[in-house]
Amino acid sequence: MLKLYCAPRTISVAVAAALYDSGIHWEPIRVDIAGGEQTREPYLSLNPKGRVPVLITPEGTLTETGAILEYLAETAMPGYVPADPLARARMREVMFYLASTMHVNHAHKMRGRRWANEDASLADMTAKVPETMTASATYIERLLTGPYLFGSAPTLADFYLYAICTWLEGDGVDVAQFPGLTAFIQAMETTRGVSRARAEGLVE
Amino acid sequence: MLKLYCAPRTISVAVAAALYDSGIHWEPIRVDIAGGEQTREPYLSLNPKGRVPVLITPEGTLTETGAILEYLAETAMPGYVPADPLARARMREVMFYLASTMHVNHAHKMRGRRWANEDASLADMTAKVPETMTASATYIERLLTGPYLFGSAPTLADFYLYAICTWLEGDGVDVAQFPGLTAFIQAMETTRGVSRARAEGLVE
Repeated sequence: MLKLYCAPRTISVAVAAALYDSGIHWEPIRVDIAGGEQTREPYLSLNPKGRVPVLITPEGTLTETGAILEYLAETAMPGYVPADPLARARMREVMFYLASTMHVNHAHKMRGRRWANEDASLADMTAKVPETMTASATYIERLLTGPYLFGSAPTLADFYLYAICTWLEGDGVDVAQFPGLTAFIQAMETTRGVSRARAEGLVE
Repeated sequence: MLKLYCAPRTISVAVAAALYDSGIHWEPIRVDIAGGEQTREPYLSLNPKGRVPVLITPEGTLTETGAILEYLAETAMPGYVPADPLARARMREVMFYLASTMHVNHAHKMRGRRWANEDASLADMTAKVPETMTASATYIERLLTGPYLFGSAPTLADFYLYAICTWLEGDGVDVAQFPGLTAFIQAMETTRGVSRARAEGLVE
């Protein structure tokens, strides 16, 4: 059975919600992020990058949210990837944007020590997060066709985006000024996947 | 015909080299990054993110290196994606790592204003780049099966990784201490794709 190392309020919620949505059987394994479990053995042997999520498959472990979502869609969880090649590319365009830009913008609030050492630099980075996350929300707002990214059904990218949207208010973004994103979040919260993730305490 | 907006020494080299390697017909369109062309109209209408690469397809434009590479592999450039689902997932695991972590580490040298405002913060970030890029090189070194990431033929991820490897020396990484990466770079430089990209002035 598939197992997923995951934790509340992290990007692993994207994978957990997609798995719950699909209805397949899988086992969540909670990682104590606040306690630093992901930075010590035995976790580091699973993922030397010290991050969640990690997917345990019958054939081996897999990291990186986007790669895990694609693997699940191909092997266990059909129905979340557009059939048309350009539409599929647009889904991946969003996923790579979320991974390389929007998640990274967010990480400069709490994880600035990845890229700088001085306390003043960390404070400077933290102060800029509302601006960079609002810029990311503005970009995403233009992409949404409504209520989901690509119409009336969620794709892999929607679960990825939803997990990041749970950070927006804490990052100082005025979500109410984005009607498309507001409708997106409301729609995602009606899905089986997000409802179950919330019931399990992964979304607060 | 496919067109690619690209520029020397940027991540767009990953796509350009893959396109040259495949032998398909396409047209490069140079973007004057130093002159800031990507931050002004008409480029911003192509890509409001103000980055390269942008792929122009008969059906529309596409951004994000990883998404462009996957689209090309599916529609025009077969042979660069493993057939086995877990192997394909491992290729994507590397691509998402490069997008979200290794490229981002590099960007803190020249592009720190994305995440901080003060000159002291930018200096702090710049000073840390040799450490973070060496950590990324160490992670990649463990993944390489040799000479390429996944054996004897390059995948999409290899072109992505090669473009980032052209930054390593400038980022203060002692490449000689990584025999796997050294062999990888040498192997990539024998490919038709990188040879042609170099001949066209995209790799120096």
